[in-house]
Amino acid sequence: MTYDIVIQGGLIVNGDGAVEADLAIQGETIAAIGLDLSGRRTIDAAGCYVIPGGVDPHVHLQMPLAGRVSTDSFLTGTVAAACGGTTTVIDFVTPQPEQPMLEALTRRQAEAAEVAVDYGLHMTIPTWHAAAEERLAQVPAAVEAGCATFKLYQAYAGMMLDDVSLLRALLAVAQAGGGVVLHSETGPVLDFLRAQALAEGHTSPIWHAHTRPARLEATAVHRAAELAYQAHCPLYVFHVGCAEAVAEIVAARLRGVEIYGESCPHYLLLSAEEHLDGPEGHLFVCAPPLRSHEDQDALWQALADGDLDVVSTDHCPWTRAEKTQPDFTQIPGGLPGIEARLSLIHHFGVAEGRLSLSRWVALCCTNPAHLMGLPGKGVLAPGYDADVVIFDPEREKTLGVDSLHEAADWTPYQDITVQGWPRTVLLRGQVIVEDEAYVGQPGQGRFIARHLD
Amino acid sequence: MTYDIVIQGGLIVNGDGAVEADLAIQGETIAAIGLDLSGRRTIDAAGCYVIPGGVDPHVHLQMPLAGRVSTDSFLTGTVAAACGGTTTVIDFVTPQPEQPMLEALTRRQAEAAEVAVDYGLHMTIPTWHAAAEERLAQVPAAVEAGCATFKLYQAYAGMMLDDVSLLRALLAVAQAGGGVVLHSETGPVLDFLRAQALAEGHTSPIWHAHTRPARLEATAVHRAAELAYQAHCPLYVFHVGCAEAVAEIVAARLRGVEIYGESCPHYLLLSAEEHLDGPEGHLFVCAPPLRSHEDQDALWQALADGDLDVVSTDHCPWTRAEKTQPDFTQIPGGLPGIEARLSLIHHFGVAEGRLSLSRWVALCCTNPAHLMGLPGKGVLAPGYDADVVIFDPEREKTLGVDSLHEAADWTPYQDITVQGWPRTVLLRGQVIVEDEAYVGQPGQGRFIARHLD
Amino acid sequence: MTYDIVIQGGLIVNGDGAVEADLAIQGETIAAIGLDLSGRRTIDAAGCYVIPGGVDPHVHLQMPLAGRVSTDSFLTGTVAAACGGTTTVIDFVTPQPEQPMLEALTRRQAEAAEVAVDYGLHMTIPTWHAAAEERLAQVPAAVEAGCATFKLYQAYAGMMLDDVSLLRALLAVAQAGGGVVLHSETGPVLDFLRAQALAEGHTSPIWHAHTRPARLEATAVHRAAELAYQAHCPLYVFHVGCAEAVAEIVAARLRGVEIYGESCPHYLLLSAEEHLDGPEGHLFVCAPPLRSHEDQDALWQALADGDLDVVSTDHCPWTRAEKTQPDFTQIPGGLPGIEARLSLIHHFGVAEGRLSLSRWVALCCTNPAHLMGLPGKGVLAPGYDADVVIFDPEREKTLGVDSLHEAADWTPYQDITVQGWPRTVLLRGQVIVEDEAYVGQPGQGRFIARHLD
Amino acid sequence: MTYDIVIQGGLIVNGDGAVEADLAIQGETIAAIGLDLSGRRTIDAAGCYVIPGGVDPHVHLQMPLAGRVSTDSFLTGTVAAACGGTTTVIDFVTPQPEQPMLEALTRRQAEAAEVAVDYGLHMTIPTWHAAAEERLAQVPAAVEAGCATFKLYQAYAGMMLDDVSLLRALLAVAQAGGGVVLHSETGPVLDFLRAQALAEGHTSPIWHAHTRPARLEATAVHRAAELAYQAHCPLYVFHVGCAEAVAEIVAARLRGVEIYGESCPHYLLLSAEEHLDGPEGHLFVCAPPLRSHEDQDALWQALADGDLDVVSTDHCPWTRAEKTQPDFTQIPGGLPGIEARLSLIHHFGVAEGRLSLSRWVALCCTNPAHLMGLPGKGVLAPGYDADVVIFDPEREKTLGVDSLHEAADWTPYQDITVQGWPRTVLLRGQVIVEDEAYVGQPGQGRFIARHLD
Ligand SMILES: [Zn+2]
Ligand SMILES: [Zn+2]
Ligand SMILES: [Zn+2]
Ligand SMILES: [Zn+2]
Ligand SMILES: [Zn+2]
Ligand SMILES: [Zn+2]
Ligand SMILES: [Zn+2]
Ligand SMILES: [Zn+2]
Repeated sequence: MTYDIVIQGGLIVNGDGAVEADLAIQGETIAAIGLDLSGRRTIDAAGCYVIPGGVDPHVHLQMPLAGRVSTDSFLTGTVAAACGGTTTVIDFVTPQPEQPMLEALTRRQAEAAEVAVDYGLHMTIPTWHAAAEERLAQVPAAVEAGCATFKLYQAYAGMMLDDVSLLRALLAVAQAGGGVVLHSETGPVLDFLRAQALAEGHTSPIWHAHTRPARLEATAVHRAAELAYQAHCPLYVFHVGCAEAVAEIVAARLRGVEIYGESCPHYLLLSAEEHLDGPEGHLFVCAPPLRSHEDQDALWQALADGDLDVVSTDHCPWTRAEKTQPDFTQIPGGLPGIEARLSLIHHFGVAEGRLSLSRWVALCCTNPAHLMGLPGKGVLAPGYDADVVIFDPEREKTLGVDSLHEAADWTPYQDITVQGWPRTVLLRGQVIVEDEAYVGQPGQGRFIARHLD
Repeated sequence: MTYDIVIQGGLIVNGDGAVEADLAIQGETIAAIGLDLSGRRTIDAAGCYVIPGGVDPHVHLQMPLAGRVSTDSFLTGTVAAACGGTTTVIDFVTPQPEQPMLEALTRRQAEAAEVAVDYGLHMTIPTWHAAAEERLAQVPAAVEAGCATFKLYQAYAGMMLDDVSLLRALLAVAQAGGGVVLHSETGPVLDFLRAQALAEGHTSPIWHAHTRPARLEATAVHRAAELAYQAHCPLYVFHVGCAEAVAEIVAARLRGVEIYGESCPHYLLLSAEEHLDGPEGHLFVCAPPLRSHEDQDALWQALADGDLDVVSTDHCPWTRAEKTQPDFTQIPGGLPGIEARLSLIHHFGVAEGRLSLSRWVALCCTNPAHLMGLPGKGVLAPGYDADVVIFDPEREKTLGVDSLHEAADWTPYQDITVQGWPRTVLLRGQVIVEDEAYVGQPGQGRFIARHLD
Repeated sequence: MTYDIVIQGGLIVNGDGAVEADLAIQGETIAAIGLDLSGRRTIDAAGCYVIPGGVDPHVHLQMPLAGRVSTDSFLTGTVAAACGGTTTVIDFVTPQPEQPMLEALTRRQAEAAEVAVDYGLHMTIPTWHAAAEERLAQVPAAVEAGCATFKLYQAYAGMMLDDVSLLRALLAVAQAGGGVVLHSETGPVLDFLRAQALAEGHTSPIWHAHTRPARLEATAVHRAAELAYQAHCPLYVFHVGCAEAVAEIVAARLRGVEIYGESCPHYLLLSAEEHLDGPEGHLFVCAPPLRSHEDQDALWQALADGDLDVVSTDHCPWTRAEKTQPDFTQIPGGLPGIEARLSLIHHFGVAEGRLSLSRWVALCCTNPAHLMGLPGKGVLAPGYDADVVIFDPEREKTLGVDSLHEAADWTPYQDITVQGWPRTVLLRGQVIVEDEAYVGQPGQGRFIARHLD
Repeated sequence: MTYDIVIQGGLIVNGDGAVEADLAIQGETIAAIGLDLSGRRTIDAAGCYVIPGGVDPHVHLQMPLAGRVSTDSFLTGTVAAACGGTTTVIDFVTPQPEQPMLEALTRRQAEAAEVAVDYGLHMTIPTWHAAAEERLAQVPAAVEAGCATFKLYQAYAGMMLDDVSLLRALLAVAQAGGGVVLHSETGPVLDFLRAQALAEGHTSPIWHAHTRPARLEATAVHRAAELAYQAHCPLYVFHVGCAEAVAEIVAARLRGVEIYGESCPHYLLLSAEEHLDGPEGHLFVCAPPLRSHEDQDALWQALADGDLDVVSTDHCPWTRAEKTQPDFTQIPGGLPGIEARLSLIHHFGVAEGRLSLSRWVALCCTNPAHLMGLPGKGVLAPGYDADVVIFDPEREKTLGVDSLHEAADWTPYQDITVQGWPRTVLLRGQVIVEDEAYVGQPGQGRFIARHLD
C-alpha cells in the first residue's frame, strides 16, 4: 500500500517505549508504523525523534484580567505552540455572573476562531456559579458539549470557593462524569498575609513568595483532596511548585483519592531566590510563586517517579510594562512559556539525565491527552490523529524574544541555549511547521470535545 | 521531723516511675517522699497506689446551650470528680458578643463558687470575638488573669472560625504566650452533609456519625496544625476520636508543629455501631461522634506510644429527656463521664495490659497538668500541692446511676464492673474523700491561674 | 506492500498500551502495525488480544536433582509452554565441581536440542565455583556466550553461598556486565530449624512452611540487596512469596539498589493453609513455601503497583510418586505450571480486576524480556521477532492433567476453569500452535544469547 | 528524723523530671527526698544538679588483646570513672576455649578486686563456646551468677558467630532469661574488604572507615534483629555509629523486635574526616569506625527522640605507642573516654540544646541501669542505692591528659573545654569524690549481680 505521507528513518518514541521504524499517514490519521513503508510523500527523520504532537493542558490565551488581556492571542499563542511542537492546547472559559456556561463556551470558541492548533476548553466554575444550584445544574450540559474538566479555585476573589462551595462543585462535576482541575492555594490566608506585608511596608516582588508559603500550598491540596474523596471526583492539581505539595498528592493517592498533578517549566528551572528576588523580580510573579532549588529537585524527582503526571506551561504572558507595578500585589501573575516546553524538558530533563526519553513524551504528550480526555491525541499508533513532531535532538537553539514566536516582549528563558528542537510538525496529517518555520493556516485548529473514560 | 500527714506503705506512682515509699504532707504541700516517715496523722496505703490527684482538662459544668444548661452544676460535677480521684478540672468561659473577656471570666468564677476541687478556665474566642481586632486585643489580659489557654472551634455556628479568623486568633494567643485548645472538625462541610441527610429523610442517631466522617475530622486537624505552625502557637486538639486524626497529629509533629492531642473514655470504650446505632442511640450523640472498634484500638495504641498525650472526659451531661429529640441534629451533644475516668482507664488500660501504670498517671494527671500550665499539680514530689489519691487496684465497683455522684439520670457505663477505685482523696493536704465518701466542703476548691512555660 | 502474514482485527496489547490494528509479519520479524494491512496469509483475530509471545524467565526442565530428573523434558516442557502462549523460556546450566562453565553450557545446549520454543540459560555459580577465583574468572566468557545472568543461592548445601562468596560472585558478575538472579532464603538457619523440627518429630508437609518463616525470606533479600549494592550488581530476586520480602525489595530500591522481583502463580493462588496443610500437602512442597492469603493480596498489589516486575513459573515438576516421601525434608521441591501462566494471570489478574491488560503483558512478556536481556522479545513493534499470541479472552478452559501438555501426573490447578486461552501462537513468524493444538517442530526453538543493556 | 547525710538545696534530676528538694541518705540507701530534711552531715548542692550515679554499661578494663592489655586497670579505670561521676560500670568476662563460664567469671572477679566503683560483667560467648552445645548449656548458671547479659559478636575471628551460631546463642540466652549485647558488623565481608584494600596498597587509617561501610553496620543489625525475633531474645546493640544502623533499630522495633541501642561520645563528637583522616588518624581507630557529621546529627536526634536509649563509652584505651602500627589493620581498636562521658553529654547535649536535662540522666544513668538489670541503680528515690553525683553545671573544665585520671597517654578530647563537671560523688552512701578529688578506697566497689525483669 502507498500512504499519503511516510516519515522515514526516525526513532518513534511513545510514552512507554521507542522503536526504529517508519510512520505512515493516511488523511488525518496515522495508518501504520512499520519497516520500509512507502508513501506519496516521504519526510526524512533520520537522526530525529518522531513523537506525538505535544499537549499543553493549561494555557491562558487572550485572557481578560482586571481590564488587561494576556499578551498572546489565540493565533499568536498557538503559532508559538506549533513552532515548539505542541499541537493541542487547553484554555479556559469563564462565564460571567449571569451568563450560562454554554453561552460562554460559544463566545470563547468564537474568540478562538483563528487558532493554529487543536484546542479544548476547561469550564471555570467561579464563585458566583458555585453559589447557585441552578448554575451548577448546567454542568452536565457543559460535559456534553465537550468540556470534560472544570476549573475550580481555592484562591482569588471572585473565583475562590470555600469548602462547601468546593464540595458542591465537586459533587456536581463528579455526577456529570467530569473531572476537576484546580488552582490550589489557601487563598483567604494568603490575602491576610499579603495585606499584613503591605501594611508593614513590604512591596518588593520577593514578598510575593514570602506571603505564599509552600506549606499553605500543600495544605490547600490536602483539603481539596479530601473533599474530592467525599465527592468521588477525579482531581488534577495545576502548577505544583513545591515538595510539600507533591508529598500531599502522594499521600492522598495512598489514601484512595484519584488525584493527579502537573508542574511547569518555570517551577523546574527558576527560583524565588534567583529570579523573584533578582533585578527584574517583578517579571517573575506568578502563583503559586517560584520556590527553591530543593523544590526543583523534588519536582524533577516526582516527574521521573510518577508522583507527578504532566508538564504544562500555565502560559500567561504580560508585557514588561504591564508587569511594572508599585507593589507586588498589583502585578498581574503569570509567565510566558508555551513555545519552549518540549525543548526545555528535553534539554534539562532528558539530556541532563533526569528523565528517560519515554517519560518526556509521557509527561508532555501522552499523559495530558489521556488525563484530559482528548481522543486521538498523545500516542503514535494506527488510528490516532496524525499529530506528529519530528524533533532533532542535536539542534542547538538559543531562546530569546527574537527566536521565539510568543508575543510578549520578554521571556524568562532569554539567552538559554537548549539542545533539541522540533524541525517539522504535523497537525492531523498536515505539515504546519517545516524546517522550524510556521507554514500552516490560521483557523486550521479545531475545538476538540473531551470526555473522560 | 514529724509531718502533718504521712501516707504509708503504698506504691507511689508518678508519670514516669514508681517507688515503694511513704509520702509526707505539711500544710497544703508534699514535704517528702521517703522511707519510714512519721506524721501526726498516718494514712495506711498498703496494697494501694498513691498517685497525684487527677487533672481533667476538659469539662462542661452548668454549661448553657440553646436554652438548656448541662446537668451537672459546678458543685455536683466536682463532687463526682473528687469521688473519682480528680482534684483539678478545667472548664470554660464563653464571653457574650459584647462582653469583655475579663468580665466574662469574673462571672464564670462566681458561678463556680461552690466548686469542690481546684479548677481552671479556658477562655473561648467565639466567632464574634475573633472577628474584631479590639476583642482579640483582650487576649493578653486573659493570659495575665490565668487563662493560659483559649478554646477555638472549627465547627458550630456562632463559635466556628474560618481559616483567617483561626489564624488571627492563633497569632493573638501565641503573641500573648498562651496556647490553643481546639474543637477540630470541618464544620461547614458537616453542616452541608447534615442538611443533605435531613433532606433525604434520615433522622436516626447513626446519621450523626454518617454525616461526620472521620476523614473530615482529620483534615480539620491538618489545616489547624498548619495555621498553628504559621502562628507559632502551641495547639492542643480536644477529643481525638479516630485513627485518621491521630495520624495527622503525628505527621504534623514530624513537620515541626507543636501539637498535642487528648482522647476521652467514650472514644476508647464505646462505638458508633454498638451505641449510636443501638436501641438508645440518641443518648450517645456527641461530637466528634463515636467511631469504630478499629479506631478504639488505634487510640489506645496512640495513648500508649505517646502519639496522644492526655485522657480527658469532655464531661457534658444531659438528661434522658433532653436527649430525646425528633432528629439527630436537635440532640444536645455530650456524654457524662467526669467521675469514672481514672478507674476506667485503669481497668481497660492498665489491668487489661494496654498501658503501664506510669503511663496511666501520665495521661490522667501529669501530662494535662503540664500541658495546661497548672503549677503544683500532676506530680508527687516535694514542693507540689498535696493533691493525692489513694487508689485501691483490687477494689471492684459496678458503675451506674446509683453508685456514681454525677447528676444525670443515665451513664454510658451503666452496669460495667471495673477493677480499681479511689479510696481516699486529698486536695491540698485536706482529705475530701474518705472510704469512697465525699467529706469535703463546697467551695473548698480554688481557681488556679495557669501559665504555660 | 503485501506481507507474508497479517493478523487482522485484534486488539494489539503491549506492556504499555493497546491499539486496534493489524499486525504484519515478514519472514521472522514484525514488519508493521497498521490499519488495513494486507498479507499473503491472513489470520483473523477479531475479538482477541494480540500479545507478544510470553517469556518465562525461570523454568527447570529435565533438571537433575539427587538422582532424579524433573518430569518435563526440554521437549515436553516447551510444547506445554507453547500451548500456553510462552515462546521463550530461560532454564539453567549448573557446572559440575571441576567442569568449566562453557563446557557445561555446551552440554546443556545439547540437552535442549529438541526445544519447541526459543530459550536462554542462566549460568549457576555453585558453592564450589564461587570458592575458587579461577572459576569466577570464567564469568566473562559465559557473558560473552550469551549467559547474561548468573544464578546464585543463599540456601541448599552445594549451592549456598555465604556472604563473602556471595559478594565475590556479585563482584565478578558485575564486572563482566552481567546480572544476578537469586534464590533468596536464609539457608543455614532454615537447615537448623528443619533439623530441630525433625528432632521434635514433626514430619508433615506443613512443617516445610513452619521451618521457613517469611521473615527469614525477607532478611535474606535484605542482605543480598546490600551486598549487590556494594558490588554495583543488578539483582533479580526469584520467586518472591511474601509481603515481607516485597517490603525489603521496595526498601532496597529506595536505598539505591538496582533490584527487581518476580513472583509465580502458585504464590498468588495457593496457600500454606489450604494446600500444604491439605490432604495432599506433600505435592505442594516448594521453596520458598506457599504462604498466606494476606501474602497473596500483597503480591497482587505489588505486581499491580510496580513493586514486583515479573510473573515466572519456577516450573519444576515431579510425579506423585516422587513427591511421596517419609518426611517433609525428603520431598523434592517444586510445582508444575509452565503452561497455564498467561491464562491464570489473565483470569485471576485481569478478569478479576487486579491488573490492567497492559500490566498483564508487561509482567508476563515485556518485563522479563527486558530484564533478562532478550533482544527482539516481549514487544509487538516493527523489527521485533514475530513471536505472537492470539489470546481469546472469552474462551473458557478447565485445567487438568488431561487438558494440559505438561508431563507430570498432577497439576496444582486441577479442575480450575479459567477465562481466556491462547488460540494461535507464532514463533518468529511460524505458526506453532493453531486452534490450541501444537503444530510446530521439535528443535524449532533457538538458543538466544542474552546481553544486559 | 535525722539522717546520716542530707544533700541540700540542689535540683534533683531523674530520668523523667526534676524537683528542687533535699536528698537524705541512711546507710547505703536513699532514705527520702523532701523539703528541709536534716542530717548529721549536710552537703551543700546549691546551684548544682543532684543526679543518680552514672552507669556505663560498656567498658574494657585491663582487657587482653593479642598479647597486649588495655591501658586502664580495673583500679585506674574506675577511679577515672568515679571522678567523672560514674559509679557503676559493666565490663566483660571472656572464657577461654576450654574454660567453663563460671570459672572465667570467678577469675575476672578476682582481677577486679581493687575496683573503685560497683561493677557488673557481661559474659562473652566466643565462637568456640557457641559451637558447642555443652558450653551453651552453661548459660543458665551464668545468669544465676548475675551475668544477665551475654556479649555476642558478628565480627572478629575467634569471636564472630555465623547466623546459626548466633541463633543458637540467642535461643540459649533467651531461654535462661538473659539478654544479648551485640557487636554488630558484617564481619566476614569487612575482612574481605580489608584484605582487598591492603592488597591494593592502602594502609592509612582512613581505610579503616572505607572498609567498614555504614550500610554493612546496618545490615548486620538487621539480620541480628531478625534472629533475635526468632529467638524471642532481647537485643541491645552496642556502639551504634551511623544513621543507617539507627534506622534499622527503629524499623526492627516496629516489626516487633525487642531491641535497644547505645551510642558513645566519640561517635557523637568525632568524625572520620576530621580525626581518622587527620594527622594522628591511627589514634582514632575503633570499630565500628568514626562516621560523618550527618551521622552525628542523626545520632543526637535518635538519642533525643528515644530511638537510641543509652550513651556508653566503650572505653578501651591503648597507648600512643601501641596505636602506632604499619597499617590500619594492625592497630588495636578502641578509644579512652570513661571519665568525661557525663560531662561531654551535658556540654554538647544539654548545654547546646540537643537534650533535655532529664534525657541526659535517662541516657547516662537510668536507662543503662534498667536495661542491664542493675537493681538499686540509676534512680534517685527512697530505697535505691545512695549512688549520687553533685554536678556543677557552671564549672568549666579543660579536658586533657593532665586533668583526667585515665591511664592512657592521650585522649581524643584533649583541650576541649566543657561546661559542667561532677563536684562530689557518693557510692552507696560513701563520699568517694570530694571537690573533684578521689577520696575513696580501692576495692570499695562491689560486683553487682544483674537480673533482667
Ligand atoms: Zn492557577
Ligand atoms: Zn493558570
Ligand atoms: Zn468539642
Ligand atoms: Zn468539649
Ligand atoms: Zn529457587
Ligand atoms: Zn527455581
Ligand atoms: Zn564492639
Ligand atoms: Zn566494646
